[in-house]
Amino acid sequence: MKVYDKLNMTMLCDFYELTMGQGYFENGYQDRITYFDVFFRQCPDGGGFAIAAGLEQIIQYVQELHFDPEDIEYLRSRNMFSEGFLNYLANFKFSGDIWAVPEGTPVFPREPIITVRAPAIEAQLVETFLLLCINHQSLIATKANRVVRAAEGRTVLEFGSRRAQGADAAILGARAAYIGGCNGTACTISDQLFGVYAGGTMAHAWVQMFDTELDAFKAYCEMYPNNAVLLVDTYNTLKSGVPNAIRAFNEVLKPLGITKCGIRLDSGDLAYLTQKARQMLDEAGWTECKISVSNSLDEYIIRDILRQGAQIDMFGVGERLITAKSEPVFGGVYKLVAVEDADGTVVPKIKISENVGKITTPHFKKLYRFFGNDTGKAIADYLCVHDETVDDSHDLEIFDPDATWKRKTVYNFTAKEMLVPIFRHGELVYQCPTLEEIRAYCQEQVDTLWDEVKRFDNPQTYYVDLSQKLWDIKYNLLKENSNS
Amino acid sequence: MKVYDKLNMTMLCDFYELTMGQGYFENGYQDRITYFDVFFRQCPDGGGFAIAAGLEQIIQYVQELHFDPEDIEYLRSRNMFSEGFLNYLANFKFSGDIWAVPEGTPVFPREPIITVRAPAIEAQLVETFLLLCINHQSLIATKANRVVRAAEGRTVLEFGSRRAQGADAAILGARAAYIGGCNGTACTISDQLFGVYAGGTMAHAWVQMFDTELDAFKAYCEMYPNNAVLLVDTYNTLKSGVPNAIRAFNEVLKPLGITKCGIRLDSGDLAYLTQKARQMLDEAGWTECKISVSNSLDEYIIRDILRQGAQIDMFGVGERLITAKSEPVFGGVYKLVAVEDADGTVVPKIKISENVGKITTPHFKKLYRFFGNDTGKAIADYLCVHDETVDDSHDLEIFDPDATWKRKTVYNFTAKEMLVPIFRHGELVYQCPTLEEIRAYCQEQVDTLWDEVKRFDNPQTYYVDLSQKLWDIKYNLLKENSNS
Repeated sequence: MKVYDKLNMTMLCDFYELTMGQGYFENGYQDRITYFDVFFRQCPDGGGFAIAAGLEQIIQYVQELHFDPEDIEYLRSRNMFSEGFLNYLANFKFSGDIWAVPEGTPVFPREPIITVRAPAIEAQLVETFLLLCINHQSLIATKANRVVRAAEGRTVLEFGSRRAQGADAAILGARAAYIGGCNGTACTISDQLFGVYAGGTMAHAWVQMFDTELDAFKAYCEMYPNNAVLLVDTYNTLKSGVPNAIRAFNEVLKPLGITKCGIRLDSGDLAYLTQKARQMLDEAGWTECKISVSNSLDEYIIRDILRQGAQIDMFGVGERLITAKSEPVFGGVYKLVAVEDADGTVVPKIKISENVGKITTPHFKKLYRFFGNDTGKAIADYLCVHDETVDDSHDLEIFDPDATWKRKTVYNFTAKEMLVPIFRHGELVYQCPTLEEIRAYCQEQVDTLWDEVKRFDNPQTYYVDLSQKLWDIKYNLLKENSNS
Repeated sequence: MKVYDKLNMTMLCDFYELTMGQGYFENGYQDRITYFDVFFRQCPDGGGFAIAAGLEQIIQYVQELHFDPEDIEYLRSRNMFSEGFLNYLANFKFSGDIWAVPEGTPVFPREPIITVRAPAIEAQLVETFLLLCINHQSLIATKANRVVRAAEGRTVLEFGSRRAQGADAAILGARAAYIGGCNGTACTISDQLFGVYAGGTMAHAWVQMFDTELDAFKAYCEMYPNNAVLLVDTYNTLKSGVPNAIRAFNEVLKPLGITKCGIRLDSGDLAYLTQKARQMLDEAGWTECKISVSNSLDEYIIRDILRQGAQIDMFGVGERLITAKSEPVFGGVYKLVAVEDADGTVVPKIKISENVGKITTPHFKKLYRFFGNDTGKAIADYLCVHDETVDDSHDLEIFDPDATWKRKTVYNFTAKEMLVPIFRHGELVYQCPTLEEIRAYCQEQVDTLWDEVKRFDNPQTYYVDLSQKLWDIKYNLLKENSNS
């Protein structure tokens, strides 16, 4: 790890976290224990679920949290913070608890994917960075998972660094794409830092640099006989690119007894051109030559060209993955759900809104996922108050929180708690899995979802239900506060 | 400057830059001088122009370019690079020339906004990071400029850190938004690092933390009497939020003789609610109370709600600005346009494509912008070969490079060279302007564009013409290579 453990991102906060922080400090709320949930309201691209990612960077951030003397100096220069508060910040350290779903977990709207329990100022300060990490990496992991599913087992590489929204977006985007199921990246530093396998062969410039396309291809085959993937669309794919590639393979690889090689297309109609290219390669005896394509791909185009018979072994997916172009925002929010009284009683809090979708589910909660014992499939998620426990040895009636007459009894199921402890009293109590483990876990967990939930368009809505106790608390708070 | 000068981003390259680099090295092209252009093909959102941004970070990157021992070690571990090449990389330094348009310049499709002249390996290696910087910041500066123009002189603050695609996207996105015309940001570190003024007051959590909304408002007014902007939509904007804000202003601010204050709305119908809120505030005598709004704003919604009579003084623009949501990719590319022969002759190079839009304009070029002497307005951009010079004391006939029968004579104009020297033989020869200067220059240059070019939808296409000599070279190369 080279770059990322050095960074202190404490100052990457919204300014209001500091103005509120001082307000809590001066109003005696400094030690008041608060509970905040991170959750999102809608899956990107109209999908049925999202993939949580970004926790590892949140952990690093929380461990590094502190204000440097230059930070204090900057804040002092703003002429609005008291010396008492600045002194508090100079000694700031995160002392709270954090629970989160592990990276790679499929998650659903309106359920907590992180819960923070901490003194008010601390909990408020981490808002921006927690959201930023979760929003960015979950967005890319979710998109990558869609793209990978569209490719139906073919290799998918993340190729988008140059179109990423900044260096982090490239580096951590490649990490998130790998979690979502990509097989590798073009981004060298993501391999170096995170072990996301990086690959790449040539750009058009390589071909242009030589006097002829054939010279360029032969030179590349000589240089990398075991990894000769030739870019065939610099001049004319079918008239010059593929024929010259075949000549280069014949002249350089064949004498070496090498049968594995590849071509890449970066323009033109990929369905038509790859079928023609496949035919030309096969007729020339290069049946093991793989065909790679790139050029503004996403899950929809991949699905369509495969349906049209495209002959493709590998997809390089760039800008539409690294920016999640079709829906580039993962709308995770961070909302106060409870505070603790002086005697330790947890008091639920709600935020109401003219936009009904913006109303929060109050209280310190547990999140269960129910898996059918016969199928292994996920049946429903279930939110209850922190002091409730689900007994999965008995049947349980659950109901839709918006349409309470829709009821269903679950039986023969295993209830799994999804939020795991990450920090306890400011100490890390979680062992981060390796990136390979996260990627494998993601694949395994996505496999627990029914195909109906995995449809790209108009998927079945997965149940995220509330316990009766939690539902009652929420609707009582709604009534109370709407009348105020 | 805290974080950004420490970073060595040399390894943020596409892996193919290294495989090609070794190929150039082993094929004796190591010292071959190459010319690459950065250009883009289409303005985001169907707009008529873009705003160039990101150069300052490119300069820092180029100055820092080097491979650390751990980078060499990583590359060695890939088992595909020769010790000769690794030794070359260990001593790597950028020795070339770079020209670029200054940050804040309005730019147009298919004209170079950066030109790199350097030995092949060096020029190839910087591709990804140059593109990433320009693509990200130009995207955000362009979007910000649209949003700011829609706000017609009202204050626009960048509020999107939490939805940004990573930390850089938040930090540098705020910088780019400021260049494009925003008045400030919510992102604290962007103020600390770049002097983008950061502001902010309260979140819903502040209101929920207190026993009543009125208590929360009064506490905030007591804390920050000179900057009391109260968030009025936690429970019910018109029934509780605005009335409680007025009470807090009356009880806390009025006795202090303070008349300046504010409210913020983050949900509901902003056109309706702001008109009602304005009326309530005015009737209560708080005519100087400013109204701020946020909630998924962009240039289209701002334009629409202003047309509907919304009473708004300040817009906080979040996710749709910081991700440029409606079109989150700025498609800048990096293409070889020429190489130098051993005798120093510059040989133009072209890339052809089945997609006509992907064909490049070859050669080492100059970019002129013609300004009318009577109006001060930009008339056309003009690309010519590096050894040509425009004499603006004479009339000049220019023509559309795609429809050559469309001709126009420009007269009484001043021709300005737009690409300025940044690096010369690897040395920085450019004095970076301050961020304030860049922002002012951007505003001034956007003012040189005709309103027709500035329309959000279906703008007039601005002329980007080629000199006759350049046109002839391009079309001869096209003919030659298409027949090959």
